[in-house]
Amino acid sequence: MTANHDERIDGPLTGFTRTQLCGLFADLLPADAILVSEEACRPFECDGLSAYRSVPHLVLLPASEAEVVAIVKRCAEHGVVIVPRGAGTGLSGGAMAIPGAVMLVLSRMSRMITLDAERGLARVEPGVRNLAISEAAASHGLYYAPDPSSQIACSIGGNVAENAGGVHCLKYGLTVNNVQALRCVLPDGEILELGGECLDEPGLDLLALMHGSEGMLGIVTEVTVRLLPIPPCIKTLLVSFDSVSAAAQAVADVLAAGVIPAGMEMMDHLAISAAEDFAQAGYPREAQAILIIELDGLSEDVAANLERLKRVLQAANATEVREAESATERALFWKGRKSAFPAVGRLAPDYYCMDGTIPKQKLPEVLAGIAALSEQAGLPVANVFHAGDGNLHPLILFDANIDGQLEMAEQLGGDILALCVTLGGTITGEHGVGREKLNQMCVQFSTAELEQFKAVKEAFDPARRFNPNKNIPTLARCAEFGAMHVHNNELPHPHLERF
Amino acid sequence: MTANHDERIDGPLTGFTRTQLCGLFADLLPADAILVSEEACRPFECDGLSAYRSVPHLVLLPASEAEVVAIVKRCAEHGVVIVPRGAGTGLSGGAMAIPGAVMLVLSRMSRMITLDAERGLARVEPGVRNLAISEAAASHGLYYAPDPSSQIACSIGGNVAENAGGVHCLKYGLTVNNVQALRCVLPDGEILELGGECLDEPGLDLLALMHGSEGMLGIVTEVTVRLLPIPPCIKTLLVSFDSVSAAAQAVADVLAAGVIPAGMEMMDHLAISAAEDFAQAGYPREAQAILIIELDGLSEDVAANLERLKRVLQAANATEVREAESATERALFWKGRKSAFPAVGRLAPDYYCMDGTIPKQKLPEVLAGIAALSEQAGLPVANVFHAGDGNLHPLILFDANIDGQLEMAEQLGGDILALCVTLGGTITGEHGVGREKLNQMCVQFSTAELEQFKAVKEAFDPARRFNPNKNIPTLARCAEFGAMHVHNNELPHPHLERF
Repeated sequence: MTANHDERIDGPLTGFTRTQLCGLFADLLPADAILVSEEACRPFECDGLSAYRSVPHLVLLPASEAEVVAIVKRCAEHGVVIVPRGAGTGLSGGAMAIPGAVMLVLSRMSRMITLDAERGLARVEPGVRNLAISEAAASHGLYYAPDPSSQIACSIGGNVAENAGGVHCLKYGLTVNNVQALRCVLPDGEILELGGECLDEPGLDLLALMHGSEGMLGIVTEVTVRLLPIPPCIKTLLVSFDSVSAAAQAVADVLAAGVIPAGMEMMDHLAISAAEDFAQAGYPREAQAILIIELDGLSEDVAANLERLKRVLQAANATEVREAESATERALFWKGRKSAFPAVGRLAPDYYCMDGTIPKQKLPEVLAGIAALSEQAGLPVANVFHAGDGNLHPLILFDANIDGQLEMAEQLGGDILALCVTLGGTITGEHGVGREKLNQMCVQFSTAELEQFKAVKEAFDPARRFNPNKNIPTLARCAEFGAMHVHNNELPHPHLERF
Repeated sequence: MTANHDERIDGPLTGFTRTQLCGLFADLLPADAILVSEEACRPFECDGLSAYRSVPHLVLLPASEAEVVAIVKRCAEHGVVIVPRGAGTGLSGGAMAIPGAVMLVLSRMSRMITLDAERGLARVEPGVRNLAISEAAASHGLYYAPDPSSQIACSIGGNVAENAGGVHCLKYGLTVNNVQALRCVLPDGEILELGGECLDEPGLDLLALMHGSEGMLGIVTEVTVRLLPIPPCIKTLLVSFDSVSAAAQAVADVLAAGVIPAGMEMMDHLAISAAEDFAQAGYPREAQAILIIELDGLSEDVAANLERLKRVLQAANATEVREAESATERALFWKGRKSAFPAVGRLAPDYYCMDGTIPKQKLPEVLAGIAALSEQAGLPVANVFHAGDGNLHPLILFDANIDGQLEMAEQLGGDILALCVTLGGTITGEHGVGREKLNQMCVQFSTAELEQFKAVKEAFDPARRFNPNKNIPTLARCAEFGAMHVHNNELPHPHLERF
């Protein structure tokens, strides 16, 4: 995506120029931790995939919580807005610069503070990469379960900000289910310690509230994650179907049989072909849909579940059930899936990755709906998704150089998300709202709900200085967008009358 | 407990008299839904176990969400404070009346709205009893997992308000992990729909925030809970040890071996004797500690885990491992545990039930500490607890008729909770803060953390009309109590220097 949507910012901006900003922090940080020139700041102009680009006016790279506190307090004194940023792998523009604001990049805070193998806990700074935690824990036979596709690059602080998922969150949950405690800095520079080592904490559940809050409430300076024993046994199946609906039904049957796979991913024909061209994963090109299903755990449990799983898949009319014979073959099965986005990206000059969710039972219905919308719009859609938890990633293919196609892709994307909401689902599963889905928030939530989000934001940040104009749309924006709140089938979406 | 702690309310009360209140709602509810006389209101004067008694000035019994909204709006017009209440089985005074306030009892909202067996979801009104959900789902082979000891009587709305646990939350989580969606009424009468059928929701996680919020943020009018398949196989073990520390070590060993029991409960010698006298559960009177460990799941999995579990227990010096031979014997094992509170209650005129948590690895340490504190105070303490998740229920035995013993029991209770905090734990696991633990909140949290709780409360309820003076202590109270915040071993608790 190359479009520039900078004009779509709600509300007032701070009036600071680049020059005004850079003098403010010179006594707080070493010179190499303050990036001033446009050239030095350009690497931070966008995130992983989103359509938005904007070069920050000033980038600060604190190396400790104390430096974060000092910066935050200085910003509070002068009314400077802060955009926190992790590794910049986000997919919804949450970490995009705001003119006149400081960007606070947490990548230098990348110490592993403690790793307590006995308790299964790791305390790390927010800039630690997701995969680095598992690498550090591996010698103790432990790992950190949530595994977003970007896990080589993304950082744990960003994972908290977006409540990141991954292919194994079907069994192991989202980031919020794997974080025991946080330290974070409030807009006035105060520090909160949230959570702890116990099952539940007294007081209001601010630990959960921080997850997915996209840097609007506080800046995370320390994360304590739960580590799990590396499963001694893993079995991975590649399962083919001659229709998408048969694959969707098989997903429902597997879950109904009481088998909880570690992951259960689906790809449709277009995605299969693209991934096979790209990664030579050994996928069946003739299949209309495949499932990659992984079981993990103790070997007796896995063996028992594997038998049950195979029986269910046969009964669900799988045309082929192939079990990975080696770690190499298993890695290959996953390589195809994990490279599906860039692989599909080669099919057209541009693609637009959506991130809706639906109740699992609605898979056949939503796939039929997406196919119809795709045909109507005249833009191909490849489907790659976490089938086990109903999280869709339709990839809309288009060419931004052809007049009107970008707008058509955006319209189609909006229609797909509205379809998800109409079916009882949501506008985002794991990529967050950021700036990209502000309009869709108007679809998802009522005025009272949006007002309550705003009130909670203001309870943390009354001056709206932490990542403003993200995540929560103004009511004016919703009115302009058409105020088309749909919730639980109560109101039909105007664009969806054709269903 | 019979003490009256009414004087310990923070902050101003509303000035309404009983007569002023009762005229306000006559046009909104049928006459039998408005209880005015002191006699009619007396059944609502206290909750399950707590030390506080206060007869409400007016009790309203709405039968629908529309009636709740009408009452809330009327109260907003007149500045009337509302105390919401479920079944009144709480253990920390959260639902206790406040002079001049209306008590809103949700027991008449007890409809099962829908039970969707295919999706594994039940939508129910807040007054539905916890166990009634499982009873209704049983014919579909489903059940609702969280099982507080009060599950026969407690209601699902109260479970949300306290984020209730139970003996099986080790494997199945707390209420927050089993609720998919809520409807709730805000202090201005607006309705929020929170959560949905999907894994994650966009926007701030207000669904989690409502759990454990003790009626301070909104009044829950509908709960959508997740139902699970009834496990086809259940095995229950009664395991004896000749010391509490050996049992505590065995708990750690079981978890380290990768076995996740459905429940793992511990009782010490005093609790065993009392339970055996009361329930004739067949407990070994000579044991210094017992564990009740339950495995559930598919039969192959349970069989494999049972073998592994038995090996771990033998290696951990269990003196006896007895497997329930029948459903009757299994029920008997649990009967002893579930009647432990009343059983211990027969040992002394009064008892005081605590609810601290600790990191699981600290079990031996905390038990030694409690024994030392008990001896110093000269009051016996029986220990009954959810060992698998580190949730302790020490029961302090005393006689309120002996001068000074009530105060000694309270002091000992406070010291035990402070010990939990010092060991990295918390002042409450599942019973909530309510009014009982307001002082202990000052121990658990810093000023900045308490201020943030207050700000979030005010984001929902700026006029402080929903259950004020519960859950969050004023800073004045903390100062009076001695401002002895301890967190993560950073500051020693003055009472704990003896350790």
